[in-house]
Amino acid sequence: MSAPIVRLANRTASLAPLVARGWRDQLPTRDAIAKEYQFKDFNHAWRFMSAVALAAEKADHHPEWFNVYNRVQVTLSTHDADGCSERDVKLATFCDEVAEKL
Amino acid sequence: MSAPIVRLANRTASLAPLVARGWRDQLPTRDAIAKEYQFKDFNHAWRFMSAVALAAEKADHHPEWFNVYNRVQVTLSTHDADGCSERDVKLATFCDEVAEKL
Amino acid sequence: MSAPIVRLANRTASLAPLVARGWRDQLPTRDAIAKEYQFKDFNHAWRFMSAVALAAEKADHHPEWFNVYNRVQVTLSTHDADGCSERDVKLATFCDEVAEKL
Amino acid sequence: MSAPIVRLANRTASLAPLVARGWRDQLPTRDAIAKEYQFKDFNHAWRFMSAVALAAEKADHHPEWFNVYNRVQVTLSTHDADGCSERDVKLATFCDEVAEKL
Repeated sequence: MSAPIVRLANRTASLAPLVARGWRDQLPTRDAIAKEYQFKDFNHAWRFMSAVALAAEKADHHPEWFNVYNRVQVTLSTHDADGCSERDVKLATFCDEVAEKL
Repeated sequence: MSAPIVRLANRTASLAPLVARGWRDQLPTRDAIAKEYQFKDFNHAWRFMSAVALAAEKADHHPEWFNVYNRVQVTLSTHDADGCSERDVKLATFCDEVAEKL
Repeated sequence: MSAPIVRLANRTASLAPLVARGWRDQLPTRDAIAKEYQFKDFNHAWRFMSAVALAAEKADHHPEWFNVYNRVQVTLSTHDADGCSERDVKLATFCDEVAEKL
Repeated sequence: MSAPIVRLANRTASLAPLVARGWRDQLPTRDAIAKEYQFKDFNHAWRFMSAVALAAEKADHHPEWFNVYNRVQVTLSTHDADGCSERDVKLATFCDEVAEKL
């Protein structure tokens, strides 16, 4: 992934589309975003996780995530940027695209 | 899976819905059915395979499958029944349900 | 899975082998057990999770788990038994067997 | 992956370590290498495939593979190089490393 690893310059504007789709901005507690997905069952949750795992490994940018049965909580932040970067926006957008189909 | 492991009694009728959705009946070469799926890319193909892998392991009924990048060829037959059984109909139907969303 | 879904009759004895391998008994906070695994990288963590996902779906008994990069935290409890059951002992043992090889 | 996408200059020498570990050189039929792995069961085969899927997507270099239950046949070739390249050597080596632990 060629995106520079820096914090979002226009944080509010950059995150607005994600917030509109249910991502929670975790400021001021933490410079991160989070969303909880609820699927039909574990098979659907696992499809989501398998898609995101491949994309994350390819981008070398991995989520923090929690799963129990049909629920998946995803938290995104960029360690090297000490906050949210374009990498998080991209991965969050991908998560939503995958989940939309499930 | 509680379905009895016997060959389909009414093979043609049982397979008709699958054949209508693109499954090839491999008779007389082999008492099996096969279908090739083409997805957008490897990520989508892998989502499909991950869903089917879980379902197959749960049912203790596994596909023969071939994958290269975005293509997945699935062949189904029931070894213990020496031909197609209800297990194949169920797994084939599941494959189609997963693929439809991708 | 044919194991009866009841709480462990001899909780301490049943969990002793798991505790010896690093599982934390979460009593009295919660009737559950938990362990954190640390792998070489995300690829290894994902191998572990893929193995456990298949086994969990087969047994219809799923973990609560959290992953970030090479770390996986697994928490096991049996909802229907309102505490730890043999299902948790089996899944915990499987987790350890998979992790041992990674 | 930064390796240039060209055919192996010293094919025999480059493939020798792989051939020694059971990879078949498919020349003259096809400029490709292939190996069949046999695992304990489907869960183990799927662990192998999950590891290879992540690595393949990361390297943007995907295998042709066939699986049925505990067996996985892997065929590697580099389309853009019209034959075997360093990418195949790397992915083949990774496949062996994963399989060794299973």
